[in-house]
Amino acid sequence: MTDIPDTHPRAASLRLRDALVQSVRDGITSEAGLIAHGRGEAFYYLLGERTHDFARTAIRAAAAQVLRAKHPVFSVNGNVAGLAAHQIVELVNENPRLWAEVNLFHFSLERVKRIVAKLQQFGVQRVLGSGLGETQILPGLDHARRLMDARGIAIADVVLVPLEDGDRCQALVASGRKVITIDLNPLSRTAQSAHITIVDELTHALPLLREELNHLRNTSDRELDDILSRFNNKQCLQAAMDAIRKG
Amino acid sequence: MTDIPDTHPRAASLRLRDALVQSVRDGITSEAGLIAHGRGEAFYYLLGERTHDFARTAIRAAAAQVLRAKHPVFSVNGNVAGLAAHQIVELVNENPRLWAEVNLFHFSLERVKRIVAKLQQFGVQRVLGSGLGETQILPGLDHARRLMDARGIAIADVVLVPLEDGDRCQALVASGRKVITIDLNPLSRTAQSAHITIVDELTHALPLLREELNHLRNTSDRELDDILSRFNNKQCLQAAMDAIRKG
Repeated sequence: MTDIPDTHPRAASLRLRDALVQSVRDGITSEAGLIAHGRGEAFYYLLGERTHDFARTAIRAAAAQVLRAKHPVFSVNGNVAGLAAHQIVELVNENPRLWAEVNLFHFSLERVKRIVAKLQQFGVQRVLGSGLGETQILPGLDHARRLMDARGIAIADVVLVPLEDGDRCQALVASGRKVITIDLNPLSRTAQSAHITIVDELTHALPLLREELNHLRNTSDRELDDILSRFNNKQCLQAAMDAIRKG
Repeated sequence: MTDIPDTHPRAASLRLRDALVQSVRDGITSEAGLIAHGRGEAFYYLLGERTHDFARTAIRAAAAQVLRAKHPVFSVNGNVAGLAAHQIVELVNENPRLWAEVNLFHFSLERVKRIVAKLQQFGVQRVLGSGLGETQILPGLDHARRLMDARGIAIADVVLVPLEDGDRCQALVASGRKVITIDLNPLSRTAQSAHITIVDELTHALPLLREELNHLRNTSDRELDDILSRFNNKQCLQAAMDAIRKG
């Protein structure tokens, strides 16, 4: 990996890139995940590489949605594990009903096991892997991508599923679950079909989500429902598209 | 690799992606090259995944520039080799003064040799590798990226250098060479600093460049100079940015 000086104007972006390349070498992230990361980089660049107000609004709604859930699950793929393992630890461990479930687009049982082991080693207290334990099927998807752990996504009412493929996001929505995503392309099928779309870079959005969860933790259900009823995902997506157009 | 049906709306894009992932496994393309490819995909998506008039104008100027050159060189990096080896064969073999020179951002002598061997195996008649033969230094760059073959880029008056890093493109321009690039991001330093920037997807642009070279081959120097004097790169880049904004 390259030594990147702090003064480099793109140091943060280059460090993420290096982390993800290392993660491919470690068998955590797939090669195709690197291409997806590059797509995200381009949209982030067009967004001025900062967290916009529309993202903060969506993060607030996401926190309210997670706090109102009975069984919230954080669906972790190879890119999310490669970029944000430390942040998953904090989110899961501070929110006692929240589980992590490793679910891969480019499935291999070995890779699921490797990522579950990595998250456990990082200290994540509740982590499952789709296909490892008792398994149920998410309708509308083929092959391994439809696997859900019977203690995880299978019983989840709210799924946080960042950097997700459009098919799976749509299948989760169609199954009646509330779906929160983090996606830098406001035009993607994932961004368009999720209930709450945070258009921001993953490692910037997750600490803000953590803060917002801590901030809202003792808020009444009624106030949380208020936040959710005021939230308009279409408006957020439109604001993100406007920001790209002007950027 | 995945089986992609012809009817899939994104078949072409998915096949390029698969080709490049395979190329990483073959030791031709670097992992970071996959991230760069993803960035290009995002811009191509915003451009509507088609060749625009501003690209055709730039391709015509590029053909004129290559035909007016004494020593034109096609600088080939790991992504270009992974995506377009067949097209390099045609371009080089049909244009007797044109050489290919393998020059890598993530340098390794082994990888240079491997790509040179691949291009030779594909039938490229004139191919060099920066650092393999007698070597000169391109000022303004560090480490291995400044190497030029004494029979190639070192004596080139025109360099076609697609998918290039901004530093190297700027150093080539500063050295007095005419620089042609192919880059999907009209805002990149490469796009902004080259003399002729073709804002189009590599494997779509190269066959059009080949056609244009064949079309203009018997054109007089005066007419070629006319094409070049009428060409305005800033205008092409502005048109590309407008297309992205409207897209």
